[in-house]
Amino acid sequence: MHLTRFTDYSLRVLIYLGLKGEQRSTIQEIAEQFDISRNHLMKVVHELGQKGYVTAVRGKHGGLVLQRPPAEINLGMLVRDTEHDMRLVECFGDHSDCRITQACLLKSVFNEALQAFLAVLDRYTLADMLDPRRQQLSQILGIAPMA
Amino acid sequence: MHLTRFTDYSLRVLIYLGLKGEQRSTIQEIAEQFDISRNHLMKVVHELGQKGYVTAVRGKHGGLVLQRPPAEINLGMLVRDTEHDMRLVECFGDHSDCRITQACLLKSVFNEALQAFLAVLDRYTLADMLDPRRQQLSQILGIAPMA
Repeated sequence: MHLTRFTDYSLRVLIYLGLKGEQRSTIQEIAEQFDISRNHLMKVVHELGQKGYVTAVRGKHGGLVLQRPPAEINLGMLVRDTEHDMRLVECFGDHSDCRITQACLLKSVFNEALQAFLAVLDRYTLADMLDPRRQQLSQILGIAPMA
Repeated sequence: MHLTRFTDYSLRVLIYLGLKGEQRSTIQEIAEQFDISRNHLMKVVHELGQKGYVTAVRGKHGGLVLQRPPAEINLGMLVRDTEHDMRLVECFGDHSDCRITQACLLKSVFNEALQAFLAVLDRYTLADMLDPRRQQLSQILGIAPMA
């Protein structure tokens, strides 16, 4: 059981942009700081833009910034947005090839477990991840302290 | 976020054997009833044997049976046994390439969510999946009622 790399990278982007605050960032800079693929990040940032997490400010002093304050970015909602397929098992989808789907009780138990998983994430925001560790995280990522 | 096919098939095997009770089963028969790969099932059954869920009774009236009563097969323990990799994100492992691992608070939040997921499964056994649906499940899978 894994979260996708897409979710992993989305979280890294949001942490980075959250630490930078009003300062603009580039995909290149995030890719370098985390030593991850620029191509992957481009897709991630594009989708984070579409889903209302990130904005690309145009112009000379342009670059990426968060579209909302970190306290308004809920981790449960984010994971629901970035995990494109939350079908824990085949029968979660519209079409199941498992013959016992109609009678099987496992689906409801796994759904209950998934809801419990998400309910924990729903209790946290990006701000909860940043505020207690702002200094350490900024230092590791070479981000100058916010003005 | 998915459970592995290994977990999915393990659950199907245990449901099947649980419905059959003392009657012996073959891998061939389970593969046919669920219309899934016999080769995959062989690996699944082998590992379920090693982990104390299934026994192969030898001899003329041999075949597969559960090693424990369904009420003693806990779903949380089973999923811990069959999901070979519960590292939700990279930093759950011993070696993380993510630069912020040492300072990042996400790992503890995701771990809390994973524990909540497993805690739900811990509340159910295989018997809870079988008893209310024994007749329907047996009918779908062509299993004769238990004596």
